[in-house]
Amino acid sequence: MRDFNSKKPPVKKAAAVKKPPAKELQTKQKAERKPVPKKSSARQAKKADNLKVIPIGGLNEIGKNLTVLEYKDQMILIDCGMTFPEDEMYGIDVVIPDFSYLVKNAHKILGVVITHGHEDHIGAVPYLLKQINVPIYGTRLPLGLIENKLKEHGLKAKLNTIKAGDKFKLGDFKIEAIRTTHSIADAICLYIQTPVASLFHTGDFKIDYTPIDGEPIDLAKFAEIGRRGVDLMMADSTNALRPGYTASEKVVGKTLDGIFREAKNRILIATFSSNVHRVQKIIELAVKHGRKVAVSGRSMENVVALAVELGYLHIPAGAYVELNKTRNIPDNELVIITTGSQGEPMSALSRMANNEHRNVKLKKGDMVILSSTPVPGNEKTVSSVVNKLYEKEVEVIYNDIADIHVSGHACQEELKLIHTLIKPKFFMPVHGEYRHLVQHSVIAESIGMRKDRIFILSNGDQLTVDKRNAVKFHNVVNAEDVLVDGLGVGDVGNIVLRDRKLLSESGLIIVVSAIDRASGEIISGPDIVSRGFVYVRENEDLINDAKKIAHQALEDSLEAGNRDWSGIKNSVREELRKFIFRKTKRSPIILPIFLDV
Amino acid sequence: MRDFNSKKPPVKKAAAVKKPPAKELQTKQKAERKPVPKKSSARQAKKADNLKVIPIGGLNEIGKNLTVLEYKDQMILIDCGMTFPEDEMYGIDVVIPDFSYLVKNAHKILGVVITHGHEDHIGAVPYLLKQINVPIYGTRLPLGLIENKLKEHGLKAKLNTIKAGDKFKLGDFKIEAIRTTHSIADAICLYIQTPVASLFHTGDFKIDYTPIDGEPIDLAKFAEIGRRGVDLMMADSTNALRPGYTASEKVVGKTLDGIFREAKNRILIATFSSNVHRVQKIIELAVKHGRKVAVSGRSMENVVALAVELGYLHIPAGAYVELNKTRNIPDNELVIITTGSQGEPMSALSRMANNEHRNVKLKKGDMVILSSTPVPGNEKTVSSVVNKLYEKEVEVIYNDIADIHVSGHACQEELKLIHTLIKPKFFMPVHGEYRHLVQHSVIAESIGMRKDRIFILSNGDQLTVDKRNAVKFHNVVNAEDVLVDGLGVGDVGNIVLRDRKLLSESGLIIVVSAIDRASGEIISGPDIVSRGFVYVRENEDLINDAKKIAHQALEDSLEAGNRDWSGIKNSVREELRKFIFRKTKRSPIILPIFLDV
Repeated sequence: MRDFNSKKPPVKKAAAVKKPPAKELQTKQKAERKPVPKKSSARQAKKADNLKVIPIGGLNEIGKNLTVLEYKDQMILIDCGMTFPEDEMYGIDVVIPDFSYLVKNAHKILGVVITHGHEDHIGAVPYLLKQINVPIYGTRLPLGLIENKLKEHGLKAKLNTIKAGDKFKLGDFKIEAIRTTHSIADAICLYIQTPVASLFHTGDFKIDYTPIDGEPIDLAKFAEIGRRGVDLMMADSTNALRPGYTASEKVVGKTLDGIFREAKNRILIATFSSNVHRVQKIIELAVKHGRKVAVSGRSMENVVALAVELGYLHIPAGAYVELNKTRNIPDNELVIITTGSQGEPMSALSRMANNEHRNVKLKKGDMVILSSTPVPGNEKTVSSVVNKLYEKEVEVIYNDIADIHVSGHACQEELKLIHTLIKPKFFMPVHGEYRHLVQHSVIAESIGMRKDRIFILSNGDQLTVDKRNAVKFHNVVNAEDVLVDGLGVGDVGNIVLRDRKLLSESGLIIVVSAIDRASGEIISGPDIVSRGFVYVRENEDLINDAKKIAHQALEDSLEAGNRDWSGIKNSVREELRKFIFRKTKRSPIILPIFLDV
Repeated sequence: MRDFNSKKPPVKKAAAVKKPPAKELQTKQKAERKPVPKKSSARQAKKADNLKVIPIGGLNEIGKNLTVLEYKDQMILIDCGMTFPEDEMYGIDVVIPDFSYLVKNAHKILGVVITHGHEDHIGAVPYLLKQINVPIYGTRLPLGLIENKLKEHGLKAKLNTIKAGDKFKLGDFKIEAIRTTHSIADAICLYIQTPVASLFHTGDFKIDYTPIDGEPIDLAKFAEIGRRGVDLMMADSTNALRPGYTASEKVVGKTLDGIFREAKNRILIATFSSNVHRVQKIIELAVKHGRKVAVSGRSMENVVALAVELGYLHIPAGAYVELNKTRNIPDNELVIITTGSQGEPMSALSRMANNEHRNVKLKKGDMVILSSTPVPGNEKTVSSVVNKLYEKEVEVIYNDIADIHVSGHACQEELKLIHTLIKPKFFMPVHGEYRHLVQHSVIAESIGMRKDRIFILSNGDQLTVDKRNAVKFHNVVNAEDVLVDGLGVGDVGNIVLRDRKLLSESGLIIVVSAIDRASGEIISGPDIVSRGFVYVRENEDLINDAKKIAHQALEDSLEAGNRDWSGIKNSVREELRKFIFRKTKRSPIILPIFLDV
């Protein structure tokens, strides 16, 4: 067993930790948080000689996975992911977990162990490292992806490479990385033993007996670990609502082989850049069918370069061609692998569909394959790209038409298999919306697990585990969404979002006037300026009438001897609000600004 | 044959038509429109002795169906629907077709013929009637639904009831209404003969041999019409990408019967209020299983009341119970039919899920059935409601789990059947996004139709048809989206939408100052007011620095002798923009307002 502790102290001194200013930890709904545990006292939750499992993100959502394991004064983290904003999170770029508990306990954290390289498992690493300095442990591909991220953020960190089969120690945590299969290469499960309890975390997985890299999930090891004993299992619930089995990645290869065989012209194929196995298969098929391969889209270029460098992707000599050198290659000898399978507006495929791609002009007869399924919420952007491709008389093949994508997550029968092999004493479904977690617990029950041994937690809850007991505590740590907008982390909260929503719905009207407060004389204005409300030039009457209303309300207020700015503003706002609503049935934000001159 | 012409003149004199102010016809992308026909001259497009078919809405979209048929100086319209706004149409309530061509030709319009009562076929009728006075023709259910709408808008109109099997004349248009089956009762197809060409319009349809009301689609009549000869067919393309057949509504009844039989507690079932047949089936099943029925949600209450009144819905004596009288009914003797199957935030089901419903408190053991499929774009709102229902320990049954919904549109094999029966000379696929229209034309070709007889049009194009020829003309009439926001029809265009988008992303910053322009002296300010940008209270430094930047830029401008407001504003805006972007990587709208005092 490797012991990373013996090589260098993974525990940074608290003094070395860069404390963030308090405002950076502003969270979305802090006011709503009730910090009192429900089931037992806070004191009991803090009892030191148990293993505490605290999910900060990843429950009741598919995204921003981050779990804290705490034993005595030692902590390790599993994954550190981000998620994309909901529709109503106007202007937000990404959402990350609330790190306040980690910052407070930075001196206890021995490391972050990464299960695989998807954004919802690694995307928040740079944001964490900006606040605290902790070592990262993971297999080569996720670490390579993290390294690229750190470069973009101008950060450095100690990245410790592990590989499937490795055993290593972080303090009292004995960790074993086990090969699993998922829609990204180099994914692992974790078997973690502590003096008081052992834990098995599946990471994201499916059971693929025939993966592209020939390294199937290590079920024999699962069985062995089951024999050795697992107190708590945390397992992927994404597909808990789907009966049966998820098909092997091999199925996609077969479908694509048939499509490639029939294709007469250029083939463009869009998929997730992180799905290195699929990219490998596409390259193999291209070679088989006498085609060269080019790559388009920044993330595809980056991941392909990284995966080749790390040896996860093998491109036969002469098979690769630069995208800007593809013009002279006959159409029936070319495959272009591209980003944009989710219809992302700035992606390579969208730019091609909009005639905005520098190197690729789509033309009649081209075949475009979308090798993916729309992530919920992306259905309309995908349809929009597909329609534009049809307009170009391109042949479009997508999931509605053929089996060109498989999920990376285990369905119900696979989940039953894992439960049967691991035989955990206690079970916590993870990685899912609430309905997925519930359904996963129903599956566990259906194969004999006692209901009182299954724990559905929310982010911020805590499960305290030892060999005999597991107890759930509510709301032990802050775990709200932290919104990132540009450089701001957590500085956009409910009030700002509410204003953005109101502004987006009806725009705003500004009433501005200069007033001599002493005399109550209106020196200038009131003028009216609007944005996002109506075309001013075509609604001059409305705006002029509004100006009159505002003037009257202002004058009335001042003549009544009112010199209290906020009272005057309220009265002008209210008169204007009534007028505007009566005339337009709209409720723009009304902003009176009065200058005292 | 009934001749509505003989009873009263359907053609209102132009003088009687209320002309809308020009600004109300402002359309989204008017500037981009190129009004020159592509294939032939505008003069040829206007040739009088053809039948002209001009879709104003419903092509390259599923929504706001409206087609103009024009023969000599006579016009009839088929349907007049609305659609819901796209995500980027901030603040827009509904989208309606561009009526400008109709307003210009109001004196020629003999009537609007409605195929069925869905919103995308009747929703824009009130907006049309506000601009021109035309008679409406339709079966009883859609006319009843339209009448309710007109009441809400405070409008009156002459509604002319027809029934399936009726033949009637509007000017030179001989119209025959034929029974079809769809996901709303009382749907019809139209066979329309003119002296120069005949047309068959399927409306929205599926082929259901076993509909709930026992009135199957009139295939014998289709065959007869095929024998009589159809020059142009326009047919529903919604499901052209789906192979096979759409299942009969009866299938849903069977699934629900099984679910009702097993249910031990209260059943709540959400579905589209317009699906009167499904509501009928639910009522029958409730009675069969010894349950009473209550109804929740405004649109469900309205449609049920209307459908009962018109005889489309039969509720056995004693089966119905008022929602506020359900408290004393045992859980296993009650079914509540509700709106909200699409997760609409204000719907009855969402209010129940949020504990905000006055009469219905959900409780453990309740069964909630979502008898529908999420319309594309609604996936996330539906998931959100489902998760909330799971949190209430309610048993949730939805389309992911059981066959409790069927589509109302024909799949590929049904389309082939219709083509084979009608045997049209020319074909125009309608009611679909571009990919659906293309796929429908591929289907037509696959069963022997010549490609040069198939015409894919866009809204605003024209197909000129006679017995021998059909010719397509591009961009003959304006047919852009017209956006409705509150009382404003078409007064929100690209500029307003762009501002709303910018405001929603980063908010805005207002810089306000009072200046003596003559002397160049700053009398007051500059002050900074922001909305939707950052929490001001927690970012005082940033705002203060911004104020200094603005002050400096203003002073520099004034000291340089600049007295041109717009130049000064640009310089302040630019300095502030650079500063804010450097500090935050955000781009709020910056609005300098200077008062001359």
